[in-house]
Amino acid sequence: MRFTSEKRLDDGVVERRFTLGDIPGVLWTPETASAPVPLILLGHPGGLDGMHPRLAARARQAVAEGFAAATVELPWSGDRPRSAAADQARADLRRALEAGEPVTDDVVDRLVLPLVDAAVPEWRAALDALLALPGLRGPVGYSGGVISIGVRLAVVEPRIAAAVLFAGSFVPRAILQEARRVTIPLHVLLQWDDEGNDRQMALDLFDAFGSAEKALNANMGGHTGVPRFAGEAANGFFARHLT
Amino acid sequence: MRFTSEKRLDDGVVERRFTLGDIPGVLWTPETASAPVPLILLGHPGGLDGMHPRLAARARQAVAEGFAAATVELPWSGDRPRSAAADQARADLRRALEAGEPVTDDVVDRLVLPLVDAAVPEWRAALDALLALPGLRGPVGYSGGVISIGVRLAVVEPRIAAAVLFAGSFVPRAILQEARRVTIPLHVLLQWDDEGNDRQMALDLFDAFGSAEKALNANMGGHTGVPRFAGEAANGFFARHLT
Repeated sequence: MRFTSEKRLDDGVVERRFTLGDIPGVLWTPETASAPVPLILLGHPGGLDGMHPRLAARARQAVAEGFAAATVELPWSGDRPRSAAADQARADLRRALEAGEPVTDDVVDRLVLPLVDAAVPEWRAALDALLALPGLRGPVGYSGGVISIGVRLAVVEPRIAAAVLFAGSFVPRAILQEARRVTIPLHVLLQWDDEGNDRQMALDLFDAFGSAEKALNANMGGHTGVPRFAGEAANGFFARHLT
Repeated sequence: MRFTSEKRLDDGVVERRFTLGDIPGVLWTPETASAPVPLILLGHPGGLDGMHPRLAARARQAVAEGFAAATVELPWSGDRPRSAAADQARADLRRALEAGEPVTDDVVDRLVLPLVDAAVPEWRAALDALLALPGLRGPVGYSGGVISIGVRLAVVEPRIAAAVLFAGSFVPRAILQEARRVTIPLHVLLQWDDEGNDRQMALDLFDAFGSAEKALNANMGGHTGVPRFAGEAANGFFARHLT
């Protein structure tokens, strides 16, 4: 892990960009802290540069609540090498949506499963590197979409103790099966009128989770319209489970 | 309105029982307050004596958050005169549930619609009397089931500015239509595994509400298992809208 830039933001947050091998990432930490703070991994749909304003806003809210936050670029996104198969799956998805046709399981599987398989080991490697830094500690939270990545991480990565999952992406049936094996506390955010979201699939996924503590928080508005009070509730959830 | 008893609870809450005509009720207020506090009406399924422990717990939490709370007995419940038609509808419902048969619209209509028609004017009369007391003020919140009573109150009573609705009772189709006319902010609590609850009906009702701000908070557990943090989130909702 190699830090490539460091910036002090005006609210006492330090933002550092890094690379882990050839994977770019960003780490947000409090400028001063008397003890190591729990880390929250911020999930996103890929393309760190375009997502940066929203990720930085979520990170600053997390740091204000006593956490550190970090994220890494997804495979085949941003400046990372493309995948012909992923590009093809994305084109097939776009074609189906534009034609108003149902999105087939085959397209969802080709779009999401290779991404989960490739991303999850990278996020775990990032966790190894991040938790070796002074000032950061587990247990760790995962916050965001891609929800299928969150599900897989919750199943395979024991350092992740709680997750805030953003419903809103297509979920392969195999991931729906994996969801039954998730046992960590979950706080699931659903935008009720999310234009890019299959609401019934989100409800089925919530139902499938094996966790004894799981809460579904549905709010009005589209994909990016999560109300501020819902973000505060999510941070309250992390405070209950990580500190 | 006539107060019939007064009790100081150990956490600075005063509990007063009253009658409004022949309707019994309970009012919980802070022992000391520098200014009038907003009132929250506590809904319940009927039978004030049996419900008292749970109602008092909700009321004490509300008073701790800076509100007053009040409730009145429902028509045909507790010590109030029975209704042969309501008893018949309840017996028909029980028979259907015990036989594992679907509960027909006819039974739901006979069970709920006369109750809503009879209860809502009484709750509005209680509001007249309560808001005339020193120390209480609007805007008012409604919190609880019977959810159909909450829906009707939200439509017809302009002093109610926000509602926390507990999904969990049978909802007539006519009430589902009325829900489209609700425009006040709503915070809907759904116990995901509520044994007495039709989850799909609750989701349909949530979808039907016309409110621009509505949030669905679903948690695990049965009818009486609402987790403490969900109650705190509901009080935060009232704090945003009533104070």
